Amino acid sequence: MSRAEHTAPTVAVRLDFVDAPGTIPAVVAHVASLGGTVRTLSTVRRWQDEAGEALVEVELEVEGLAEAQLTGIIDSVPALRGCRPTQSLDKVFGKRLIVIGGGAQIAQAVLGAVSEADRHNLRGEKISVDTIPLVGEENLAAAVRAVADLDRARALLLAGSIMGGDITRAVQELQAVGIPVISLNMVGTVVDVADLVVTDPVQAGTMAVMGIADTAKFDFARQKGRRY
Amino acid sequence: MSRAEHTAPTVAVRLDFVDAPGTIPAVVAHVASLGGTVRTLSTVRRWQDEAGEALVEVELEVEGLAEAQLTGIIDSVPALRGCRPTQSLDKVFGKRLIVIGGGAQIAQAVLGAVSEADRHNLRGEKISVDTIPLVGEENLAAAVRAVADLDRARALLLAGSIMGGDITRAVQELQAVGIPVISLNMVGTVVDVADLVVTDPVQAGTMAVMGIADTAKFDFARQKGRRY
Repeated sequence: MSRAEHTAPTVAVRLDFVDAPGTIPAVVAHVASLGGTVRTLSTVRRWQDEAGEALVEVELEVEGLAEAQLTGIIDSVPALRGCRPTQSLDKVFGKRLIVIGGGAQIAQAVLGAVSEADRHNLRGEKISVDTIPLVGEENLAAAVRAVADLDRARALLLAGSIMGGDITRAVQELQAVGIPVISLNMVGTVVDVADLVVTDPVQAGTMAVMGIADTAKFDFARQKGRRY
Repeated sequence: MSRAEHTAPTVAVRLDFVDAPGTIPAVVAHVASLGGTVRTLSTVRRWQDEAGEALVEVELEVEGLAEAQLTGIIDSVPALRGCRPTQSLDKVFGKRLIVIGGGAQIAQAVLGAVSEADRHNLRGEKISVDTIPLVGEENLAAAVRAVADLDRARALLLAGSIMGGDITRAVQELQAVGIPVISLNMVGTVVDVADLVVTDPVQAGTMAVMGIADTAKFDFARQKGRRY
């Protein structure tokens, strides 16, 4: 089951408050009492006011409420100092292709992916390309597993020259939660389990973006096990 | 005040449960009762079990608790079906450079940034390069403002050929929350407010990563207003 099937509209606010343990529980309980469900909570900034109190800014995305209901939270949770509507990250940054690997390969793969995402975004899509260059089996396997924890991640592109062992197991775990994995043609066993194997890194980046774009006729499921 | 000054260690778990409104409030209240503070909550997957019940998987990052305390939550919140430790995203993906722009510029800027991040990550850092290609003043201004909502974002690189108007105001708002902005040399007023202006896109990507790397001797504050 692909992740793309599960999206519901959310509304988002930024909240400012004193960084005390009770505030987030009060906010979340109030959202639930209105019938909303918290989908994302992200601590985006911490600072101190003139009196030296530790303040925190939190971005909150909620499903099932109207924006006015969510911003009304400021009147119901006394600990809040500020509350202003913001756009949910889904509306701004859209779907994410994650690119993991190293060296010349990852730089060329991301070049292809960003160029292709630019073309689809010109036609009204929102596709981000998020990259981390890494080396080492342990680092790479941990990063592949962690892609499952990234909201809005729709596909993973592995861009390196040798990947196998625990990385291959991590790829299979990621596929099991519905995230397709594209791999460069390389040494190691990752290519044996990848949904799609592509030799040229620029084309691999391009195809990976095509696979998550609604404006492209390209389906990973129909490419399963193919090599280019 | 830079964002880098405010980091405290977190522990992370993935939770599985039936997607009902009361569960997240119960989890968050329990975390608070133990003395922990939720820093990130991210809904990463939704699916249905054999009985057709809607299930959800949530990644939770908490400050102030030991991992065993956090995983012990499974015994205290009956609605949870599963709870397993995971690595916090900060440990895996580290600091983020955000690149926003379009066309040939963004593809070259991200090439420089990813190549430079690869070199720093080889020396033990964790630096991600996250990109969205966009056009239009409204889209770009919204994306610049939303960078403030991205956890672990440490700098923004604007890679285009003309940016001004509301984008310039958005840049100033972002700088006010401690995120430096690097701009390509381009048409429009963004270059007048940017922390650093660089003509070559590959070098701009490289310098942007140097500015957030602990392994580089490069300080945005000392470059304020300079053009290269």
